[in-house]
Amino acid sequence: MSFAIPFADRLNNVETSAIRELFKLLGKPGIISFAGGFPDSAMFDVEGIREAANAALNEEPGAALQYGATEGYLPLREQLAAFMASKGAAEVAPEQLIVTTGSQQALDLLGKTLISPGDKVIVEGPTFLATIQCFKLYGAELISAPVDGNGVRTGELERLIEQHKPKFVYLIPTFGNPSGAMLSLERRQKVLEMAVRHDTLIVEDDPYGDLYFGDAPPPSLLALSATVPGSRDRLVHCGSLSKVLSPGLRVGWMVGPADLLAKATMCKQFSDAHTSTFAQATAAQYLKAGRMPATLARVRQVYAARAEAMVQALRSELGDAIDFVPPQGGLFVWARLTGADGRVADGAELARRAIDRGVAFVPGAPFFAADPDHATLRLSFATADEDRIREGIARLAQAL
Amino acid sequence: MSFAIPFADRLNNVETSAIRELFKLLGKPGIISFAGGFPDSAMFDVEGIREAANAALNEEPGAALQYGATEGYLPLREQLAAFMASKGAAEVAPEQLIVTTGSQQALDLLGKTLISPGDKVIVEGPTFLATIQCFKLYGAELISAPVDGNGVRTGELERLIEQHKPKFVYLIPTFGNPSGAMLSLERRQKVLEMAVRHDTLIVEDDPYGDLYFGDAPPPSLLALSATVPGSRDRLVHCGSLSKVLSPGLRVGWMVGPADLLAKATMCKQFSDAHTSTFAQATAAQYLKAGRMPATLARVRQVYAARAEAMVQALRSELGDAIDFVPPQGGLFVWARLTGADGRVADGAELARRAIDRGVAFVPGAPFFAADPDHATLRLSFATADEDRIREGIARLAQAL
Repeated sequence: MSFAIPFADRLNNVETSAIRELFKLLGKPGIISFAGGFPDSAMFDVEGIREAANAALNEEPGAALQYGATEGYLPLREQLAAFMASKGAAEVAPEQLIVTTGSQQALDLLGKTLISPGDKVIVEGPTFLATIQCFKLYGAELISAPVDGNGVRTGELERLIEQHKPKFVYLIPTFGNPSGAMLSLERRQKVLEMAVRHDTLIVEDDPYGDLYFGDAPPPSLLALSATVPGSRDRLVHCGSLSKVLSPGLRVGWMVGPADLLAKATMCKQFSDAHTSTFAQATAAQYLKAGRMPATLARVRQVYAARAEAMVQALRSELGDAIDFVPPQGGLFVWARLTGADGRVADGAELARRAIDRGVAFVPGAPFFAADPDHATLRLSFATADEDRIREGIARLAQAL
Repeated sequence: MSFAIPFADRLNNVETSAIRELFKLLGKPGIISFAGGFPDSAMFDVEGIREAANAALNEEPGAALQYGATEGYLPLREQLAAFMASKGAAEVAPEQLIVTTGSQQALDLLGKTLISPGDKVIVEGPTFLATIQCFKLYGAELISAPVDGNGVRTGELERLIEQHKPKFVYLIPTFGNPSGAMLSLERRQKVLEMAVRHDTLIVEDDPYGDLYFGDAPPPSLLALSATVPGSRDRLVHCGSLSKVLSPGLRVGWMVGPADLLAKATMCKQFSDAHTSTFAQATAAQYLKAGRMPATLARVRQVYAARAEAMVQALRSELGDAIDFVPPQGGLFVWARLTGADGRVADGAELARRAIDRGVAFVPGAPFFAADPDHATLRLSFATADEDRIREGIARLAQAL
């Protein structure tokens, strides 16, 4: 009677993540977690979202609850275009973006639209874990480009583009997950120039760009593309409300060349028909109500203080056992164990010891598509308050 | 400077639909449309959904707006299990279903999880257009099993299973789109038996089963599987709130064998991370509030009257020029032009003429994965009231 499900071959391309196993341990009472990749629920503007949802149901109940266009709900596309314009990308018309079910779906649609089995894609090493798995499911062979404190190293990147002629290059230029690094203005310029020079599509994933602590980061590749002729035709930009407003709405968007958006829309039609119109109408009302600037200011302030607390605690508690570049935005400190004085130099080993001491983080090796650096680790400062952060880092020092 | 996007090979498997072209004409003023496949917005329980959304934000704001489990929001999975139990499928635990972003995503996850390029899948002829395109994007070769007024012809289906050894069989047994047919109890039994006999996975897509006009339909394959040993291990059931509550929430679900759900969950993680928790929490609160039985009763009554109006008008206005089985539920009349007295016998030709007369419907041929029957057409009675239905059918008679 037993029956073996005949799974598709593509499932052989991905393995269950080691991180999943770690997350099972997070339920232990008293654990201080730096492991998550999500914003702090306590900072959601619940009242603003409630008002927006009610406005959507009052003003446009039919549209908010009915099937909608696969490209997205037009009033939201208009608000998102205005939101991007407020951040320097002034030339994006509402028709030049499509709404996606979180920016995760933008990655999925890029995979479906662009990747044939065996195609090469260049990503940063390290990069977002779900990007690696998403592209691998479509059969991509991933090439890893090294990063430093200023983001991807453009000389190396260009060499890899020449060598591998990838379908596209996927970057998180601003406060990347997990690296937290910020690509310098000079390197941004170079990336756009090499896109044109080598006829290579660049994907800019930008969920964290609004979460800066001091000065605003350099313009996004999208904003900067206006100054590099031809680069806009070779650029895809993915945005998201998940880190700044609410992940639960699942509202992201994708800007790109018209023919790419047309194919991605066709693929989306057969993926989920469209993103929840209720969530889209709610997001549109929220943006229209003008609440976003105050929300962003509040979120930046809280995360900046938490980042500072973590940086200070790491320096005073761990000293030369750890090496990192203080983040200028985002949710993460990306660090490297030095092994100084014979202390633990393996992230996975430290993660196991840390759990026993009551603190959790994610080892860095799984974030590499190739050649993992086992000494790395990712610490999120987003969800614990400053006292808990200091306590958690003290526990980490004990584990070390 | 011009740049040709290097699209994936899989896009060659699908063509832009002829129906899309037709839909562009629907904007003409005064058109009566029987072309849509959606419920009537006027029947949405806006007040109930508003209360549910507010309850979600009052009682569980963190969960409703935060990232959630890929498998779905547990309170919704519990409510959906109870909803299915109320319809006869009493043995589905909340852990035995996953929430999907509309049932369209369930189709996409089945494609991703099961279909390798070249694999065969049996569908009904005719079947849901977006199913055909969705599975083709994963490289499926579709085999078409004939249907009659009692649903798929099981003798033919078993012969095709033996001949093609498909990855799975996809059926809409109850008031299918576009056929409107209801699979008889006897045939349901046979389908489950042949699933076991031939070790074949059966997918039951059931978005319309709640929309019956007189007696309730026979039990779903899911409910009936309790009586056919081994069949439950070879059965996937897809449900949706789109046709009965609101498509805009994008809340569907999938019941299936545990190992299939595990793989589908992994694929969903890289497709959209999870379905909007805000929409899920709203749906959970709606179901918990006990509003669904009254909503279903109202929807059934309105659609039953519209179906009856269309059936009567078709008989009196078109007479022997058209042949159809009166629907017992769902949203559609599926009809066949007989060509009697030399009148139009081609659905696409009639669709073009009908637009000029001010009435729209969808020709049937595109709904066939193979061997299209060009004499067929699909008429939706869901969105026009009874007077408009009579007027629209009168116009159709003139076009004929």
